[in-house]
Amino acid sequence: MDDYQPSVLLDLDGTLVDSVFLHVVAWDAALRAAGHRVPMWRIHEGIGMGSKRLVPWLLGGHVDGTSELSDDHERRFLEHADELQTTPGAKALIDDLERRDIPFLVATSATAQLREALVEALGMPDLTTADADDVSSPKPAPDLLLAASATLGLDPAHATLVGDSPWDGEAAAAIGMRFIAVRTGGFGDDRLLDGGASSVVDDPRALVGRL
Amino acid sequence: MDDYQPSVLLDLDGTLVDSVFLHVVAWDAALRAAGHRVPMWRIHEGIGMGSKRLVPWLLGGHVDGTSELSDDHERRFLEHADELQTTPGAKALIDDLERRDIPFLVATSATAQLREALVEALGMPDLTTADADDVSSPKPAPDLLLAASATLGLDPAHATLVGDSPWDGEAAAAIGMRFIAVRTGGFGDDRLLDGGASSVVDDPRALVGRL
Repeated sequence: MDDYQPSVLLDLDGTLVDSVFLHVVAWDAALRAAGHRVPMWRIHEGIGMGSKRLVPWLLGGHVDGTSELSDDHERRFLEHADELQTTPGAKALIDDLERRDIPFLVATSATAQLREALVEALGMPDLTTADADDVSSPKPAPDLLLAASATLGLDPAHATLVGDSPWDGEAAAAIGMRFIAVRTGGFGDDRLLDGGASSVVDDPRALVGRL
Repeated sequence: MDDYQPSVLLDLDGTLVDSVFLHVVAWDAALRAAGHRVPMWRIHEGIGMGSKRLVPWLLGGHVDGTSELSDDHERRFLEHADELQTTPGAKALIDDLERRDIPFLVATSATAQLREALVEALGMPDLTTADADDVSSPKPAPDLLLAASATLGLDPAHATLVGDSPWDGEAAAAIGMRFIAVRTGGFGDDRLLDGGASSVVDDPRALVGRL
């Protein structure tokens, strides 16, 4: 097919920036401050969902104060913004896609403030991102991926999403998008494969020249 | 067999106290401060090993300054000691073992200072622990488990270890001890089963009345 044009969407938070474990600790602190007790491994399992989904998922439908909890989590996370580091090969992968003229977009459901901190950690202030400000349903809903595909003007079914969580996989599967998982989020291979990953690699470095 | 006496060893750090994710963040900070870059998911994978093993495992044999790194990690971890919480059912499981007269021991390779913080988090200051002060080879070597079995005066092959990491499983397997894994360390089921777990449950609560 002459009009086949592969394209790539890159998750930001956890995939290009090594942020997942800091999110877990920030959520733990926010939840405890609000009087909730949730084991950290459960918090970790939910990272990668949008906050609006994560809080009721963790608290079993108890959703009062979701936005206050999300705000408190973000405030606590951003206190550690200067500790954020890129995942191995994050910048190299972006450079590689640019060099090879492969259409790509960094797609994130992070709030503007969080996005700014993540992009700064990445050291690419001019990076264009598709973001979720206008997206009503957060991951694992595919809205963000659809919006990003529309921005690229390409068929979601010809795109590959690189992400670190099973929730990325669930979002991709809903629209027939291929999902390649990186281990940087600390999710086990079984969960990533169950989440629809066609393959699992350590980090973005492993994908340089291969997408 | 009349002389069969089942017994239980309980890992402390990560199994009875919800500490693993705080360890990851503390190791990350200590490693960065020393000029090393290690992705957090790799740090997480090594949690549960003794520090003397973990540092060379993470740094690929670069072992200069292992004890300084371990000390710095512990200092940073202990700054968050007041955030430590028990895992669900930790105290209930200990109460259950006592009530049912099942010989058990909490076995930990933590340093005295760390052990004190963990036991305090557990709210059981009088708890007897078998510890690794005299144990030369840290987990995944079985030395600690052998020492704890000797303290109980029981056959390691009749004991069950409850732990949260594949390294617990490796130590248990080396001496024919059964290993039951809890998910509180954030390790995937596949890794725990590969590590020799005979079963995997969410947390200590799931084992109350069942050991």
